[in-house]
Amino acid sequence: MRFKLTILFSVAGILLSAQNEDSVAIRKIYNYHLKESKTYENLRYLCKNIGGRISGSPQAEKSVEWAKQAMIKAGADTVYLIPCMVPKWVRGAKETCEAINGSKKEKLSVCALGGSVSTPKEGLTAKVISVSSFEEMEKLGAENIKGKIVFYNVSFDPALISTGSAYGKTVKYRYEGPSKAARLGAVATIVKSMTLANDDHPHTGVMAYDTLVKEQIPCFAISSKGAASLNKLLSETKNLQLHLFSACKMLPDVPSFSVVGELRGKEIPDEVIVVGGHLDSWDTGEGAHDDGAGVVQSIEVIAAFKNAVAKNKRTIRAIAFMNEENGLRGGKSYLAFASSEKNKKHIAAIESDGGGLVPRSLGISVKADTLSYYQKWSSLFEPYMVSINGMGGGADIGPLEKLGTTQMSLNVDNQRYFDYHHTPADVFENVHKRELELGSAAMNSLIYLLDKYGAYPGKN
Amino acid sequence: MRFKLTILFSVAGILLSAQNEDSVAIRKIYNYHLKESKTYENLRYLCKNIGGRISGSPQAEKSVEWAKQAMIKAGADTVYLIPCMVPKWVRGAKETCEAINGSKKEKLSVCALGGSVSTPKEGLTAKVISVSSFEEMEKLGAENIKGKIVFYNVSFDPALISTGSAYGKTVKYRYEGPSKAARLGAVATIVKSMTLANDDHPHTGVMAYDTLVKEQIPCFAISSKGAASLNKLLSETKNLQLHLFSACKMLPDVPSFSVVGELRGKEIPDEVIVVGGHLDSWDTGEGAHDDGAGVVQSIEVIAAFKNAVAKNKRTIRAIAFMNEENGLRGGKSYLAFASSEKNKKHIAAIESDGGGLVPRSLGISVKADTLSYYQKWSSLFEPYMVSINGMGGGADIGPLEKLGTTQMSLNVDNQRYFDYHHTPADVFENVHKRELELGSAAMNSLIYLLDKYGAYPGKN
Repeated sequence: MRFKLTILFSVAGILLSAQNEDSVAIRKIYNYHLKESKTYENLRYLCKNIGGRISGSPQAEKSVEWAKQAMIKAGADTVYLIPCMVPKWVRGAKETCEAINGSKKEKLSVCALGGSVSTPKEGLTAKVISVSSFEEMEKLGAENIKGKIVFYNVSFDPALISTGSAYGKTVKYRYEGPSKAARLGAVATIVKSMTLANDDHPHTGVMAYDTLVKEQIPCFAISSKGAASLNKLLSETKNLQLHLFSACKMLPDVPSFSVVGELRGKEIPDEVIVVGGHLDSWDTGEGAHDDGAGVVQSIEVIAAFKNAVAKNKRTIRAIAFMNEENGLRGGKSYLAFASSEKNKKHIAAIESDGGGLVPRSLGISVKADTLSYYQKWSSLFEPYMVSINGMGGGADIGPLEKLGTTQMSLNVDNQRYFDYHHTPADVFENVHKRELELGSAAMNSLIYLLDKYGAYPGKN
Repeated sequence: MRFKLTILFSVAGILLSAQNEDSVAIRKIYNYHLKESKTYENLRYLCKNIGGRISGSPQAEKSVEWAKQAMIKAGADTVYLIPCMVPKWVRGAKETCEAINGSKKEKLSVCALGGSVSTPKEGLTAKVISVSSFEEMEKLGAENIKGKIVFYNVSFDPALISTGSAYGKTVKYRYEGPSKAARLGAVATIVKSMTLANDDHPHTGVMAYDTLVKEQIPCFAISSKGAASLNKLLSETKNLQLHLFSACKMLPDVPSFSVVGELRGKEIPDEVIVVGGHLDSWDTGEGAHDDGAGVVQSIEVIAAFKNAVAKNKRTIRAIAFMNEENGLRGGKSYLAFASSEKNKKHIAAIESDGGGLVPRSLGISVKADTLSYYQKWSSLFEPYMVSINGMGGGADIGPLEKLGTTQMSLNVDNQRYFDYHHTPADVFENVHKRELELGSAAMNSLIYLLDKYGAYPGKN
């Protein structure tokens, strides 16, 4: 492509010529993020010098100290830690899965789900049964399930435009699947990785045992390619067995922290605006998209207010939440902390936890009437190709709903998100510098407006 | 990120519940592209089995035959070739650039610009002078430029949100730079690669010699990392020399072809809708994003009409244009062909030449009044996160404007485009299957509507 691009893409520039104070301020914010910010280098450090940081791990502890220092360097006038007890689950020796077809054996790529118990030391061997839904498994009943390994053979639906919708429809097999299968006597479960990517990375993620089901069975995710091989073997072999091994275990809770960097408001300090992501990640990758991105973006909001925006009227808090992935203890303990603060009102909270991908919208979860209050800012975001819609929120800020805090989020293009999510591919190299920076700039601009004009004065 | 995704992303699904005939048809089109299409596998073949295909090359010839067969396989009822004479420029032996600082030498990564003459066989050695604009060079004048290598040291502006705007502002140094420098007595030019990526790929692309300037000097692009090294050397060294070598040359024009796959309209066959991309590419990569993507997307529109849509009323032509990159002969010869057709009216032409990236909008270049005719279809595209705006057009379909053909395009997110554009990184592996498919689905849906309702009946 050659010259027509010039014409096609210059309109965004022209729109800016109708400048007013806010558009000038937002332009400054974007300039800061695209030209001067430390966002990308902070992410490099977090991913490469600390790495995957599951709650309770030495890496998670290290990341708390790093976040504290990064908030200070960004220019927060107060930085503090909010303690919480977190689960400590450890993966142990690398998991294995071997398909046994008579004398033929084939290795398949698996990993344990977060929270899983281990197999016996020598592993376990059993026949495998493929099911495409809970309903199908229930119909098969204990007589067909007992003693077997259940394979939740459920694919992402490529027809769903948002990959998040596809995730929403399949994640139950990971989260609830083990106990549902155990109730029918299964000895282990394997879930197909939640992705449209055709690769050999198994996707871990949290699961929980149902306290009403006595048996806790080991549970695994299998890569896309592994699932394809398993399906091929199942179609060719009558009595296929799998040998599974894992050494993971849950230890007692340990203390940890969320990290808050605050810029105290100069005029209305009792009104608080939160921007955050989560510091913990899964252990198999570097937690780059999930959610190092959200953390470094939030920290950079502080830096941009110090460097590119006039003083903030209201109090802004960048928060690196601990333990989003398997407990939400950081989000919950922050609610407890916020509830204890006298006179403070959390007017809005914005979460970035969809990956460091290109921004599509700023989501604000309010009634349609209220949304129009915020959508009068839409034209300010047009030059940046970001819309304002009603689809806001995030896990860490969710507890703040109890305080009436408006739930907001950075919504990014998620076509690539599940190529990386909870896998060894969630590494720094897979984050695009500019897409990451555009995300912090969009959130930062919304915070600039919230700081200046406040949140909708009525009930959401 | 865990569960909130489900809520965030399910709205797109809900919108679909207000189904009518068109939304059902468009849903079917998307399903076809996302679940059954050959788009990605066609691109794999074109990139991996044919590769880079500069006009006049054996690969370009091979790609013509491939496109013909692919159109037939897609189900076109007529496939034909439209001849054109194309320039044949050959790169020859790999270019080199060596910075000479006394006895110290450093290799820098360069490539010749498309259309450049070669250096002498033994290369050329001269001092280098850095300029940041044509104005600066003119001010320096012949007394400072004569006998030197001019380094157009102009960076992409990261503050511009669309990378296409940044390209539009710098491409003149590549295209016109050599003759402008030659007029002042320069012996060669080097242009900084047009990208925000920090890597070692030089970005080639077309240049043209000004026929009013007698001297034709060799011209090069240098990689981002090479430019950084060169700048460092220039700041440290007084009399830095460069040794440049290239062996490229322009041969006489040769015959080639654009490829048309047609589905004749069943009711109004004389109204023609064109969808296309360009078959030729630069030689240093595989021409994956630029513009294998546009070609395979266009071919798949034919396949989708055969497989997922009821019969077409109007005539639809998928066109793989030849020679977009350095001559536009395919686009021009198609205009001549179209002008010669009795009774046919080309009502609309859609080009995909922005890469196989995630779609953001369908651009339709018309007056604001006319645009509202098309924007009544906007709600049909909302579930797919595609808007309709006035920024349409493309190089290959540009000549059709003479026939009053409405200029349209698939506009994709271009944050990553210039990471690949005209480089060895423009390979199949850097195209995301789903993003590619979403692009063909969006164009296909617009064509479905144009076929059913026709273009705006008045003057654009």
